Amino acid sequence: MAPHPLSALSLDETNLARDIVKDSYSDVVIQFRQILLHEPPKSQVTAFLDLEHAGKVTEETPRPSRLALATYDVIGASQFPEYHESIIDLKDKKRVGHEVVSSDTHHGSLAIHEFDTLVQVVQDSPLFQAKIKELGLPEHFEVVVEPWPYGAPDLADGRKRLFQALELATGGKGDPLTGKTHAARILDHNATSEYVPELLPEGTRQDLKPLGVVQPDGPSFTVTDGNLIQWQKWSMRATFNSREGAVLHDIRYDGRSILYRLSMSDMTVPYADARPPFHRKQAFDFGDGGLGHCVNNLALGCDCLGVIKYFDGVLVGSDGTATETKNVICLHEQDNGIGWKHTNWRTGRAVVTRRRELVVQFIITLANYEYAFNFIFDQAAGITVESRATGIVSVVHIDEGKTSDYGNVVSPGVLAQNHQHVFCVRIDPAIDGHKNTVVQEESLPVRIDKRTNPNGNFYEIRKTEIATSVGLDAAPHNNRVFKVQNHSKLNPISGRPVGYKLTPPPTQLLLSDPNCTQSKRALFARHHLWVTKYKDHELYAGGKYTLQSSLEVGGVSDAAARNDDVLDEDLVLWSVFGLTHNSRVEDWPVMPVEIMQLHITPSDFFTRNPAIDVPSNKDLTSKQVMGEVTEAVACCKL
Amino acid sequence: MAPHPLSALSLDETNLARDIVKDSYSDVVIQFRQILLHEPPKSQVTAFLDLEHAGKVTEETPRPSRLALATYDVIGASQFPEYHESIIDLKDKKRVGHEVVSSDTHHGSLAIHEFDTLVQVVQDSPLFQAKIKELGLPEHFEVVVEPWPYGAPDLADGRKRLFQALELATGGKGDPLTGKTHAARILDHNATSEYVPELLPEGTRQDLKPLGVVQPDGPSFTVTDGNLIQWQKWSMRATFNSREGAVLHDIRYDGRSILYRLSMSDMTVPYADARPPFHRKQAFDFGDGGLGHCVNNLALGCDCLGVIKYFDGVLVGSDGTATETKNVICLHEQDNGIGWKHTNWRTGRAVVTRRRELVVQFIITLANYEYAFNFIFDQAAGITVESRATGIVSVVHIDEGKTSDYGNVVSPGVLAQNHQHVFCVRIDPAIDGHKNTVVQEESLPVRIDKRTNPNGNFYEIRKTEIATSVGLDAAPHNNRVFKVQNHSKLNPISGRPVGYKLTPPPTQLLLSDPNCTQSKRALFARHHLWVTKYKDHELYAGGKYTLQSSLEVGGVSDAAARNDDVLDEDLVLWSVFGLTHNSRVEDWPVMPVEIMQLHITPSDFFTRNPAIDVPSNKDLTSKQVMGEVTEAVACCKL
Repeated sequence: MAPHPLSALSLDETNLARDIVKDSYSDVVIQFRQILLHEPPKSQVTAFLDLEHAGKVTEETPRPSRLALATYDVIGASQFPEYHESIIDLKDKKRVGHEVVSSDTHHGSLAIHEFDTLVQVVQDSPLFQAKIKELGLPEHFEVVVEPWPYGAPDLADGRKRLFQALELATGGKGDPLTGKTHAARILDHNATSEYVPELLPEGTRQDLKPLGVVQPDGPSFTVTDGNLIQWQKWSMRATFNSREGAVLHDIRYDGRSILYRLSMSDMTVPYADARPPFHRKQAFDFGDGGLGHCVNNLALGCDCLGVIKYFDGVLVGSDGTATETKNVICLHEQDNGIGWKHTNWRTGRAVVTRRRELVVQFIITLANYEYAFNFIFDQAAGITVESRATGIVSVVHIDEGKTSDYGNVVSPGVLAQNHQHVFCVRIDPAIDGHKNTVVQEESLPVRIDKRTNPNGNFYEIRKTEIATSVGLDAAPHNNRVFKVQNHSKLNPISGRPVGYKLTPPPTQLLLSDPNCTQSKRALFARHHLWVTKYKDHELYAGGKYTLQSSLEVGGVSDAAARNDDVLDEDLVLWSVFGLTHNSRVEDWPVMPVEIMQLHITPSDFFTRNPAIDVPSNKDLTSKQVMGEVTEAVACCKL
Repeated sequence: MAPHPLSALSLDETNLARDIVKDSYSDVVIQFRQILLHEPPKSQVTAFLDLEHAGKVTEETPRPSRLALATYDVIGASQFPEYHESIIDLKDKKRVGHEVVSSDTHHGSLAIHEFDTLVQVVQDSPLFQAKIKELGLPEHFEVVVEPWPYGAPDLADGRKRLFQALELATGGKGDPLTGKTHAARILDHNATSEYVPELLPEGTRQDLKPLGVVQPDGPSFTVTDGNLIQWQKWSMRATFNSREGAVLHDIRYDGRSILYRLSMSDMTVPYADARPPFHRKQAFDFGDGGLGHCVNNLALGCDCLGVIKYFDGVLVGSDGTATETKNVICLHEQDNGIGWKHTNWRTGRAVVTRRRELVVQFIITLANYEYAFNFIFDQAAGITVESRATGIVSVVHIDEGKTSDYGNVVSPGVLAQNHQHVFCVRIDPAIDGHKNTVVQEESLPVRIDKRTNPNGNFYEIRKTEIATSVGLDAAPHNNRVFKVQNHSKLNPISGRPVGYKLTPPPTQLLLSDPNCTQSKRALFARHHLWVTKYKDHELYAGGKYTLQSSLEVGGVSDAAARNDDVLDEDLVLWSVFGLTHNSRVEDWPVMPVEIMQLHITPSDFFTRNPAIDVPSNKDLTSKQVMGEVTEAVACCKL
């Protein structure tokens, strides 16, 4: 059977794309960055999905062309390496699209081999060696080069491809923005910062008893056809690619379409230390790097509990050869407390259900930081997109006894710089079809009025249709929510359009001056919710090319600026939220997770609580502890 | 051994208080409302706690007097029942305080027997029977009386004690605020709304596989001395009383004091239907009712998973006799995903810990609604106060084919009225001692300035000490947080005062007109965070007496209005957050939980991540599902 149109490229398909690219050149070296599925136009996919959900797909059913996008450098054709992008038709075995991207406009994303090269180049540099020597570091002290994408470039930098390596900074409050301030023996006031269990001076705590999750009958989900997940009336396809990580497609509940596609679109992490070169510490963790290479190989039992299904992903090396990376996505169920409950006080009858959730998780490590991204589905037909930030905060040196306006001293001599994390989730809705409308809904106070509000308790719900593509903001004081509705289908109970509700997390937006490069290259981070008209391959909030960008080009800001009609149209929502992270001492040496959540819940989509038929079985594994619990004794009462 | 000064009254103590009250009267009937511990003055308790934590408490250690607060009606002494309150010294066996509370000023809280009386009185009423008859309901149709506290009274109501019973409403959009609009056969367009599993027409879903939590070595917590909980460096005492439910005292981490007391203070639920009498639908679920009688007897395995410890509570009947109510609080551990993680990309070594949490939970059913309140403690020394709203939304009738500006039609003929839930959590901090200061901290943009911000990436952290008791608001666009600090103790790493951070959930505040009774009696609901100076027995945000109140008296608004100095003082924080609930069809017949959380996290309180010593053991009960998961097969890989 031919692959599903939404399936990621297989190993063979990826290698075939590599071969077709290589066969297009001679007498040059090709260094690959990424090879991934070039998703078919939505119109072709939806035609296929309609047949699929009608049970009419056969081997003969026409399928969209299988296309691969290959990005790579051509070395040796001209004075400098050229960055090329090709679209490969895997059936016809030919390039059907080709572009040479000039470094005057954009740079290709980083590849792993460039990190290695950078570290080597810096370490071999006589200038670097001389500067390090000046510091008078202790003998046998190993200096580690910290590679960083060259974010927020200066105008004077021009358009050549740049990479930066950050070493020790210095100074503190009141010191000038540039210049040396440190004394000799710069590291004498530093302390060790171990976190690996066997290196902790006092070891790990000993009184944590095991807690396990058992699913004796296995999981409630099935995975068939490689990527088709079915669970508790939900169905969706999960794929993996090196730009976005896990992507979910064709998300349905009880057979009804909800989302066409759900993905992490991009994120930006700007730093607020005013001293050059720290304005250039601004990562786009998806766009800059091709995060696929930073994705974690999730280890059994460490990252998830219970019965776990892992998905592998295909990545390419610099020679374009595909390798299967194991366990890049994990799928599991979790219990999240009471789902719904009611005790009828007239009859004494209590009915209580648990809230079971399905979690699709991927985790990335970007040098010091890690992010766990969870797409969570619940039995009440709600979707939660959760981001957990952990790992090591990015730090610089600080002189002994000094403090700073740019961050907090989290360990002696260690300054954690203030920064932000701003995420963008791309939500391509298909609420009972592809023609949808976004309605802003606010709850607003109303003055006492003897005709309409005689006792002052009434409040108004004001609805505003979003007619034109735009960036919008959260307004929690007005209880502002956004409903994505299908105006051609009314809920038979309420008479209102069927829809899903999105409450934008009212987190702080980008703080940097709107006129500075940090801001201009992350225009997506200036609004909480963007509504744009769907356009094939418009997937990345910060634009296709973020590395070393000085302006967001082809991102969501440009998409909104088209002033497209989005009333009753195929539209896309981009939800932006984040964390202003002024580090605490408690964030060192590895920070406890900071959890952020976006909720997408049905709103008059169904005709009742979709979880009302969840069984209220007692859980037979629970144990009651009788009386005083002074030691590890548990009595079982079934 | 004498009871701990913070322990709730025992059965014997409660009955002793009852006897002392009864012995104070003759020739009258005493009907009790509540008997609970009258907590000792903080100065006496802290003296005891200092000795206790120094290990110096003996049987001879002086203890504060054991005092009971008894609230009751005296019937037969004068023309109308009188409401009395007495403070009883349980050692000296005498009343040490006594007050007759006039109904001109306040009313005592509701007692269960009043509900029964109301229902009976209404059902026996010829007027009620005649009105019901007019409706022409189907034969054998059972009309149920819905008792409601008489919220937001009209001026004309005077000060007599009132109770209301709500029956069918009618009308829809465009109809006048009062008057009959319905046709005959008023119920013909209604449908059944069953939720009890065996009454669901199509039964429950069959494909949910069991998921259990196992703790083979028992829980990691101990409970000693009746109410002393110790878990993962945390210690606290948990008590139960009929006004607040579960209360936590003397909360410490690693022996260091964090909070003196943590409790749900009150909440208000105003309805926004402009038609009289719905402006009087406004419950104070803690203050009006004495929620103790509404507390759930938590059943094993239904409300919590894992190994569970239950606490019982003492409640009194109308004759003052104490009974032990089983399982009113439950204590259990839960897993909440990754706690912290880092993969060192230079060494390939990954360290990942889970986030274990301790949950102290109580659940109340208030007629149609239920609330689950969870106090959650984590290994990184964070505290989360979580409220889960579920149960049945409060509804009225609506004519066939009509819609309404006052709510949503969630079932044929059933209008769920728009309303709000506004909670107040009382936080009595003791950050390394009782002299604390609240500092508001905001992250604010800064313009490009060649001297201070040459590249525009800097942002300012502006700190404002709260000097005078006050009500403050959330400002998430400024990343506004509040830190409770001890200014006499600096963190040795950062040099900043030790503290805990509270991020006020930026939810919508009370919407009703500030000049209306709904607003005036819930002044606490007009700000997100109140800071007041500690005062013994000042525990209730909406005041001690909320039933039928027309103004908040003695609540947090009055406390703030004292303009007390709160710099380096013993202070109290009151966190207000909630939910504007414009019901969805999906909220019917029982709504999926709506989850709200307040986070209180250490901020430069510790010298490193407090969870850094959590072991990163692999969980041996996890199972990997190999390959395609088409049936319930799980392969174990250890």
